[in-house]
Amino acid sequence: MTSPAPATRAYRRLSVEERRTQLLAAALTLFAHRPPEEVSLDDVAEAAGVSRPLVYRYFPGGKQQLYEAALRSAADELERCFAEPPAGPPTERLARVLSRYLVFVDEHDAGFSALLRGGSVVATSRATAIVDEVRRAAAEQILVHLRPDRPGPRLRMMVRTWIAAVEAASLIWLDEGKQPPADELRDWLVDHLVSLLVATATTDEETAAAVRDLLTLEQRTGPAGALARRVTSMVSEAAHLL
Amino acid sequence: MTSPAPATRAYRRLSVEERRTQLLAAALTLFAHRPPEEVSLDDVAEAAGVSRPLVYRYFPGGKQQLYEAALRSAADELERCFAEPPAGPPTERLARVLSRYLVFVDEHDAGFSALLRGGSVVATSRATAIVDEVRRAAAEQILVHLRPDRPGPRLRMMVRTWIAAVEAASLIWLDEGKQPPADELRDWLVDHLVSLLVATATTDEETAAAVRDLLTLEQRTGPAGALARRVTSMVSEAAHLL
Repeated sequence: MTSPAPATRAYRRLSVEERRTQLLAAALTLFAHRPPEEVSLDDVAEAAGVSRPLVYRYFPGGKQQLYEAALRSAADELERCFAEPPAGPPTERLARVLSRYLVFVDEHDAGFSALLRGGSVVATSRATAIVDEVRRAAAEQILVHLRPDRPGPRLRMMVRTWIAAVEAASLIWLDEGKQPPADELRDWLVDHLVSLLVATATTDEETAAAVRDLLTLEQRTGPAGALARRVTSMVSEAAHLL
Repeated sequence: MTSPAPATRAYRRLSVEERRTQLLAAALTLFAHRPPEEVSLDDVAEAAGVSRPLVYRYFPGGKQQLYEAALRSAADELERCFAEPPAGPPTERLARVLSRYLVFVDEHDAGFSALLRGGSVVATSRATAIVDEVRRAAAEQILVHLRPDRPGPRLRMMVRTWIAAVEAASLIWLDEGKQPPADELRDWLVDHLVSLLVATATTDEETAAAVRDLLTLEQRTGPAGALARRVTSMVSEAAHLL
């Protein structure tokens, strides 16, 4: 426990909004690095240097309310990671977003795992709704860069399945002690989306149109160029299929 | 309600094991097509033509026990779908497994959705453990066909992320009234794995070795040949990257 003196001082100094923000920050830090089962209201009070009754005054719904507020705050932070100006080579935009995303995953490791794995005590319908909202926001952002006028079902499905693959890769990455290094995982996830886009473009005209537009923005020195050359060097293996 | 007479007759005729199997089959049918929240023990009793106390005699844990037993039975059925002799063009093996899998998803639509979406009342840790076991079984089966001696982390991650993508695609497919037709979805999922394998092979030597071996088994007329030709015809769009 922190000593009561500074906590008492802090009581007087902070406005209602500041206090709420401070409690939320303390909760978010705790929920980020431990499964929610292992975080108590006492832990939050202690981390914020306040009393347990004060936490209840701000969050009368107790731990569940605090958890959902922390999740709301983390979701907003994550959605901000997705914003990227639609300019420059698209694979480089994607790499920047994924880098920010992986920093977020790294910083919220235990909480991220607990939330996305089923069977957790915190997997309430409200928590699930927040996670789904983040997934939708991610899909919408990707579609902004793919720039279809009105994305059809195949392109939407493709984007959503890739997001599911990214989530799964993130959980595996956390399970494996954050290996491979984040940059390597990021580059592989970029390759994954590019190859999925190309494969999908071969049977879906809307995806094909998007890929044609995107390719004109790609550069020989960027991720798409590097992947294209690496794939081309493998083509001799598949000569009997052409 | 069924009339009591045949139910009473059925009481006497079935052995303990037969009765258990019959109750489970009734439960599985109900849980397959409705969210578990909408299935009551009375529904199971009615569907099986028996009394509610009899259901309790076989499943003293009530609905949760019945649900988990039905889930166990469905998981076993699904795992049997994955078995495929490791002979012939690998993409054709994959297409056969995916066809069986999509029949399973079709036949267990509402239950499949309810289970795999978070926030469900049935997302207990036991249910989650069963789902994770099925995912592991799927990954192991794919690795059998990829035939690495000891699959390294990249190949494992690749397989598991593709499985997550398949799950996501299945849920979207159910949400969209089972569109596109199952065959089209299956072919796209095959293309997805092939393109992911090729992209991963360009940076992971173990995956490259597996891809080389697999390609020798593929035929010009099969899914891999069709995809290779469709991708090749797009290469002119990417000429500036090579």
